[in-house]
Amino acid sequence: MTYTAATQDQLLAIRVNAGIAELAASERFAAAEPDMVEAIVEGIGQFAAGEWAPLNRSGDETGAKLEIGEVRSPEGFAEAYRHYVEQGWNAIAGPTAFGGQGLPFTLACNVLENLGTANMAFSLLPMLSVGATEALEHHGSEAQKAKYLPKLISGEWSGTMNLTEPQAGSDLGALRTTATPIEDGEHAGKYRIAGQKIFITWGEHELAENIVHLVLARLPDAPEGSRGISLFLVPKYHVGEDGTLGARNDLRCVSLEHKLGIHASPTCVMSYGDNDACIGELVGAENRGLMAMFTMMNNARINVGSQGVQIGERATQAAVAYARERIQSARAGAADKTPVPIIEHPDVRRMLLRMKALTEGMRALLYYTAGQVDRGTLGDEAAARRAEVLVPLIKAWGTDAGVEVASLGIQVHGGMGFIEETGAAQLYRDARIAPIYEGTNGIQAADLVTRKLGLENGATFAGLMDEIVRDAGGEDGLAQLAGACRTVGEWMRDDASLDDRLAGSVPFCTMSAVAVAGWQLLRQLRAIDAGEFAGLADAKRATVRFFLDRIVPEAAGLKASAAAGADGLYALDSAQFAR
Amino acid sequence: MTYTAATQDQLLAIRVNAGIAELAASERFAAAEPDMVEAIVEGIGQFAAGEWAPLNRSGDETGAKLEIGEVRSPEGFAEAYRHYVEQGWNAIAGPTAFGGQGLPFTLACNVLENLGTANMAFSLLPMLSVGATEALEHHGSEAQKAKYLPKLISGEWSGTMNLTEPQAGSDLGALRTTATPIEDGEHAGKYRIAGQKIFITWGEHELAENIVHLVLARLPDAPEGSRGISLFLVPKYHVGEDGTLGARNDLRCVSLEHKLGIHASPTCVMSYGDNDACIGELVGAENRGLMAMFTMMNNARINVGSQGVQIGERATQAAVAYARERIQSARAGAADKTPVPIIEHPDVRRMLLRMKALTEGMRALLYYTAGQVDRGTLGDEAAARRAEVLVPLIKAWGTDAGVEVASLGIQVHGGMGFIEETGAAQLYRDARIAPIYEGTNGIQAADLVTRKLGLENGATFAGLMDEIVRDAGGEDGLAQLAGACRTVGEWMRDDASLDDRLAGSVPFCTMSAVAVAGWQLLRQLRAIDAGEFAGLADAKRATVRFFLDRIVPEAAGLKASAAAGADGLYALDSAQFAR
Repeated sequence: MTYTAATQDQLLAIRVNAGIAELAASERFAAAEPDMVEAIVEGIGQFAAGEWAPLNRSGDETGAKLEIGEVRSPEGFAEAYRHYVEQGWNAIAGPTAFGGQGLPFTLACNVLENLGTANMAFSLLPMLSVGATEALEHHGSEAQKAKYLPKLISGEWSGTMNLTEPQAGSDLGALRTTATPIEDGEHAGKYRIAGQKIFITWGEHELAENIVHLVLARLPDAPEGSRGISLFLVPKYHVGEDGTLGARNDLRCVSLEHKLGIHASPTCVMSYGDNDACIGELVGAENRGLMAMFTMMNNARINVGSQGVQIGERATQAAVAYARERIQSARAGAADKTPVPIIEHPDVRRMLLRMKALTEGMRALLYYTAGQVDRGTLGDEAAARRAEVLVPLIKAWGTDAGVEVASLGIQVHGGMGFIEETGAAQLYRDARIAPIYEGTNGIQAADLVTRKLGLENGATFAGLMDEIVRDAGGEDGLAQLAGACRTVGEWMRDDASLDDRLAGSVPFCTMSAVAVAGWQLLRQLRAIDAGEFAGLADAKRATVRFFLDRIVPEAAGLKASAAAGADGLYALDSAQFAR
Repeated sequence: MTYTAATQDQLLAIRVNAGIAELAASERFAAAEPDMVEAIVEGIGQFAAGEWAPLNRSGDETGAKLEIGEVRSPEGFAEAYRHYVEQGWNAIAGPTAFGGQGLPFTLACNVLENLGTANMAFSLLPMLSVGATEALEHHGSEAQKAKYLPKLISGEWSGTMNLTEPQAGSDLGALRTTATPIEDGEHAGKYRIAGQKIFITWGEHELAENIVHLVLARLPDAPEGSRGISLFLVPKYHVGEDGTLGARNDLRCVSLEHKLGIHASPTCVMSYGDNDACIGELVGAENRGLMAMFTMMNNARINVGSQGVQIGERATQAAVAYARERIQSARAGAADKTPVPIIEHPDVRRMLLRMKALTEGMRALLYYTAGQVDRGTLGDEAAARRAEVLVPLIKAWGTDAGVEVASLGIQVHGGMGFIEETGAAQLYRDARIAPIYEGTNGIQAADLVTRKLGLENGATFAGLMDEIVRDAGGEDGLAQLAGACRTVGEWMRDDASLDDRLAGSVPFCTMSAVAVAGWQLLRQLRAIDAGEFAGLADAKRATVRFFLDRIVPEAAGLKASAAAGADGLYALDSAQFAR
């Protein structure tokens, strides 16, 4: 399965939807001038396609293996990761004080988009490290930053997020891992960590020299629930004051999950403190761990939303290539009875254009969101609030649409799509985790209809939809959809019970995401009409029209579900759901 | 993963949607009186849940294996198949003249529904045999029927359908397998078969004593394309005039496909005539093979549509069971902060009710279709035509909805859904073949908008939608959807180009299926209101309301896509689809 980075479409989205030129006008992001942006987008695209993409299928077949406590990655991964670090790709958005390039989050997003399109399972390694880096950047002490950030930013060390326990999934307040202060001795002032964590992505591996685990745990006598959770830094190898690596910490990977997809990514059950000798440092204030995690979770959620783009791009390219090669039947009704490539048949074109339109729509929304985050970093509070609203949209709709595009990719391949060797099936398997992790899509939608809809007493959301209505021009379908989102949002805010809101949350989230994505695609088309990216003009016009003429009206069909309320869901008691 | 047969809901659908009492009023189906129907539905449900369901996960893990030309099935399959045959389940709808029970197709559908819910991969073995049986029943000579039907109907022998070749998938006219008449000797009057077939489900195995392959091939000097294809019966073991098994025929399984799902079902590459000694008999007239295949394909397509019901039922039961056990978080906004089973959270309920509503909607449509087929068998030509229209609806929408329900099933399980041991992932993998085989869903939709929409110059389809509008009562959403289907159907018939019709075919097919399914669910609810199946009343009301209030309006949102026409799909040339 060959693959070419979507460089031009990425540059278009970075220019139009993220507004990179405006970002570069700031002192902080001055380095993001056009040549640099182009060099990064082209460079990471080539690197990912050249070095990481060829390992995607073999990584799926071989998978990560646990051997006597050590995780062995598939062949080629170690070298490909080393090249990634050596070429500096990990350091794009890290703070310059610790060796990063200090570029906008938008460009770090682009690095991950390209890595994940090439090899989603592999890209989780740097993606998780970003989370750890951000947590330390925002909540770590100066000493912790100095000690850990440079290596995390370079990628020589990797990071993990340790949240979930068997009884504590979406409900992190239920976690039981403990942290006991150490009074005396070598580790005085630190904590003894004990507990088991599950679903730890890249929790153990040999690709980086050290692994910095960020672990949520409870201090003695901490309040119950989510207000009694603190964040700890627990290194795989202890780190000396001079930065040298010391002895191994008392933590280990107990087992790997046998998963539907992302086989090359080791999903670890991690055990801390089997010998009562696992040492960690507190990050940030006591009992404020969940807040710290949520800080970094916003960006992580955007990067998971990006996985919809990634799978979508890869699946679309594979399906297009197959449909252009596979010869089957003449065009229906054609005088010429010569069989044609299946891309010439109307329904295959419909599927391919749908895949393209969804993928490009997701990408437009992704970079619009990333650009708002960067504006927020520059102090634009309205943009920061808008980013808050956009995060659940890109995470939930992006990952749902990623699954849909992967499924269409199988369909275009016909019977061959069901055969693993073709590669389309792997994308369908890999894609399926994204609606689940980093907060299920139900959690995203709940976040939208509770916290995010309440920002500025509803004005943040309403303002977004109003802007779409105003900017829709002659696109009545788009304006109607945005208007419907505004109406349902108002009903939720003013009249609906909490249950009613939650009952309609997922369809409401989808509608809203499609409205913003359609709008951002329209903005791309206008930029092209104004003379930018002329090479993309025909293809973009076709995908934008498909999105506005077909996908937008479908999303409007969700209004009844979004506003149906909760009563119908509670007409049955729990037992009546069973046969 | 435990599983209970959906006996009561099946009986409701068989009573209300198939109208079994009316069928039993005929002489031909007089045996289908209520006690018999109940005994069959309950009996096969218990058998399938008891003997086939426990083999589902192990069958997936072990898979079918090819060992020196022989296919080894997973442990337990041989015994479970033997019990199935011994208990007579295979013979339900076979003609009484050859040992069958002569019962309605509706009840044979129910047997397969139960087998497939228990173990979809395994159920393909009897499902494919049905196809071979029907082909012989309708097109075989009296001698062929006498020789092959009794064993096929009992299930002692199994059957296969050999259509696809590497270059001939959806375009069967491109197939190249040859059949050469034998003039002299032992096999005079028969044919020498030579060629390779792919994607042959249960093409080789040791569960039945013999395998009757039905093979499409070309006679010498046959016309090109689909008018030059004949149907041949090619037994694995030759059968003597007295019915005894003779030497092995010159055919073999060359390899098994490595598939995304249905691992226990051997998908074979079959080679015929490696030693120029593969002997087959002509079935039906020369060059009429494709017609013969299409005869049986209608029923096979209904049974594939049933796989949506099957996967849906299994996935829903698993998700309900998990959601009732898994404790996570208190209800949002509740004064009581005690964590509750996740089924109490609104969005989990939404997902579960959606799964139930889609599954029961598919089932209502399935048995409505089967009942129309049975009426057709009794000579009701209007019902036969209506069945023709319904076949693509249940096949395409049923299988698409099956994938959706399986995917929701994973989502309800959260992170556990992505772990293979849970079983939800297998359903998501297994489900994905159904939209592809037995004619891709694109082919189904093309069949709808070309051949089926043209029946009686459009009156068959319009009459169906008119009946829904008339029967909708106060259900305005349903009436509007059916009205929209009628309008789009008229546009397609009268004004749209062939390309326009094909461009909108899949969304049109989905809309139409949802309209009919919603109507059939409404009929179930009315029957319950009239006093039948009182035990289902609450649950059915909840699922029907969910279907009518949420799924029906969503389907109405497809109207723009169905009527968008083909121009937008051809704005790009093939090369412009690629990056």
